[in-house]
Order: sequence, then structure tokens, then C-alpha cells
Amino acid sequence: MQQSPVPPETPIYRRIADGLREAILSGELRDGDRLPGENALMAQYGIARATARQALSVLINEGLAVPKRGSGVYVRRFRPIRRHGSRRLSREHWGQGQAIWESDTRGRPYTVDEVQLDRETAEEDVARVLGGPEVWVRRRRYSVDGRPVQLSVSYFPAGLVEGTAIVQEDTGPGGVYARLGDLGHAPAHFTEEVRARMPHPHETVQLDLPAGTPVIAIMRTAYTSAGVPVEVNEMVLDSASYVLQYDFDA
Amino acid sequence: MQQSPVPPETPIYRRIADGLREAILSGELRDGDRLPGENALMAQYGIARATARQALSVLINEGLAVPKRGSGVYVRRFRPIRRHGSRRLSREHWGQGQAIWESDTRGRPYTVDEVQLDRETAEEDVARVLGGPEVWVRRRRYSVDGRPVQLSVSYFPAGLVEGTAIVQEDTGPGGVYARLGDLGHAPAHFTEEVRARMPHPHETVQLDLPAGTPVIAIMRTAYTSAGVPVEVNEMVLDSASYVLQYDFDA
Repeated sequence: MQQSPVPPETPIYRRIADGLREAILSGELRDGDRLPGENALMAQYGIARATARQALSVLINEGLAVPKRGSGVYVRRFRPIRRHGSRRLSREHWGQGQAIWESDTRGRPYTVDEVQLDRETAEEDVARVLGGPEVWVRRRRYSVDGRPVQLSVSYFPAGLVEGTAIVQEDTGPGGVYARLGDLGHAPAHFTEEVRARMPHPHETVQLDLPAGTPVIAIMRTAYTSAGVPVEVNEMVLDSASYVLQYDFDA
Repeated sequence: MQQSPVPPETPIYRRIADGLREAILSGELRDGDRLPGENALMAQYGIARATARQALSVLINEGLAVPKRGSGVYVRRFRPIRRHGSRRLSREHWGQGQAIWESDTRGRPYTVDEVQLDRETAEEDVARVLGGPEVWVRRRRYSVDGRPVQLSVSYFPAGLVEGTAIVQEDTGPGGVYARLGDLGHAPAHFTEEVRARMPHPHETVQLDLPAGTPVIAIMRTAYTSAGVPVEVNEMVLDSASYVLQYDFDA
């Protein structure tokens, strides 16, 4: 982000917010540090409580700080991931060999770990969608900025993907969707079902969730242009790390 | 759903769950009825407590039953509302004078209550989107099958809607979007931002949420074909009552 000189007519609450933001972005204030409270800001700048509150709420609105009930406002350096439902899955994207996650994280470092590949008999809900219970399953966990944010389990019809890179740990440039394209089954349409709920115990552990943090559960089905379902992907997201965005026309 | 004969190797907890599910779906057990407890299942089938618990948790995970702390597991026949992000907001829909909620509920009875209309100065996040702080605000609560499921707050630029049916309780056929169309500002594009979190205390009261139920928070912005934002709608949904569906192309 470009830093421009602050014009003198900028309101005081903004100038205070700018100073605190700079301290956060420069690393002077770090994740979990307590920001100066309303009383401290009032004394330091000779301002009203409402102005001090306004300064702090700028940082809260920007996701750089979180209020904790009865305790103060704390630095939160983890910016929510903006997960753009359609843009991230556009054909231009994976067609050019990019990973879908590059769209989500915009340059922030991410890792994929606990990758697990299995051939299985699917549960009824997945088997019904994919037209049969024999599936290959890709399980993995994604972390961003060193923090686990998502568990993801993808199911593919076993007959379709057997012996391909889709059942390898490294699926190659463009990932599984590019490989489905190589097979003549490129995804053309997606349906995402979004739910929110409290996490199951193993999800709390795997996502290292603080108590009282719900998860977002997404079930996506990918269809070819002929309407053939080629993947079911069940994702569980740390709700504190995500904003989902969907754009559509009237 | 097709009923297939249960193969004999099906684990006992699944067979118990299948039996209870059938009793619920057939109407033998009804909304609010208490399911047999762990002790009853243990005695009836000669199984361990863990197995009885597993059977009940199948139904809880399927949304057909809810545990109440220290009291037991109860039938919950409330079918989640399938909220179809794009279809419900299609122009054909409100252009023909239909209420958007008719798409969500598909004939189930719904009510709108606690409707409140105010002219206000908007908070910064809304003012930034709408290009100014002067807004008309429509607040209301939706209930389906007699159960409150959603709080909704819509903001409109005051200069645009002043003196129109949009600031009346009854907005007429097709609702606010049809009225925006009458003004030459029909919504053409929508963006929805979806988050999940625990409810604020007033939301717990207004939505009558059981303890430990998260909410889904949606912020939708409606744009005209010229890209002018004409509404910001902040919605809070009981997560146990909703599945959001979004369809899009690769």
C-alpha cells in the first residue's frame, strides 16, 4: 500500500488511526498486543471519548484490531482471506496453470499439509451426487501466514481418475481442474452449498480454533458442460479467517 | 429418496439411526418429541453407551434432531431453508411482482414482523458504499413456520428513496427492487459477503437461538447496470435454519 503524506485537514481520529496502523504494519505493534485504550488516547491527544472510540473503530473495521469484551482492543495481524466464489474458479485461472489458492491469498504465503490420498467407498450423500460409491479422496489442510484456515476433502469418481495425476500428491500446474480438463471433463459449472455450525472436536484440533469459533462448511459440486458431476469438495473453514464473496446478476 | 434394503453388515448404530429416521420422516415421531435416550437404547439393543451415542449423533448431524443440555435429544423437523443466492434475486422474479421470500420458502408460511423505518446517519462502512451518510433504513424480522430465522436491515440513499413506497411499510408488488426499478434504478448486479460468527446478545433474543448456535452474517450490495450502489442489506441468519446455495460458471 502506498503511503501518502497526511494533509493537515485530516480529522484527528483518522490521524490517530493512521499512526496506530503504521505501528501495526511496521511490526512495532505485534499480533496480540493491546492498543492504547480510550482513556489513554483522550489524555494523550486531549480528545473526547467518542473521538478516541472512532479512531479505534477504524482499525477494527479494517480487521487490524479486535475488541475483547471488557478488556480493550488488541492487534490482530491476520487479515481475513477474501474467498471470491466465482473468480477463484474461473477457467482462465486454472487453465493457465495457476493454483486456485493463489487467487485467495494474493501473495500471502500458504502451505498445504497433511495431504492424504485414499481410494474409498463414499457415504451416501457423496455417492448419490457422483453416481456411485467408488471414489478417490484427496484430504488436505491449508494454512495461511502459518495459521491453519481450512480442511478440504475432495471426492472424484474412481473410474474417471484412476491412474491419473489426480491421485498423486502433486497434481501439476493448474491442479485437479486442469487435469480433469486433460481428461476431457473440464469443470464448467459449480454449485456451492454454504452452512455454518460449531466445529466437531477433530476440526477444533486440526484448525487450532479458539473456543466459541464456528466453522463455515461448504460443499461444492463441479459439473462438466454436459452436466456430469466430476468432483464433490467438502470444505471446513475457520470462520474468523474468512469472508466469502459471491457476485451475481439480477 | 430411494429406500434400499439394509444389508446385514450395516453397523448397529446405523441401523438404529435408520429406524429412528424412518420414524421421524414418516411422522410417527413429531417435531419436539423426545428420542429414546442413551440408556433406553443400551437396554433395548444391548449395546454400549458409545454406540447409542453414535446412533443419536447421526440424526443430530443430519439436522433431524437437536440435543438439549441435560435433557435429551429431540426431534427437529424444521427443514432448513434453501436460500438460492442468485435465483431468488433474478429480475424475472421481483419484476413480476413476487416477493423474494416466496423463492426461499416455496410455499411454507412466512411472516415479516417488527418492521421499522427510520431516516438515519449511517455508520462509516455503509456510508462509504452508498456514497454518503444520509440513509433510509428498513429493519425487519422474518419467521418461517412460526420460527424467527432472519434479521434484515436495508439501507438506501435518502435522496433517492425519499417520498417513495420504499419508505412505507408496504412497498407494493415486487417489493423494494421493483420500486427501485420504477425510479429508473433497477438492481442489475449483486455482491454478497458471507461471514459466520457467534450471535450478539440482542440477536440471540430476537432469533430465539439455542445456546451455541452461530449466525451467518450476509452483507449484500445492489448495483444498477451503471454500477451505482442503491442498497446495502445486512442480514443475520440463524445458521441452523439455512443452507445458502450459490451457482456459478468456471
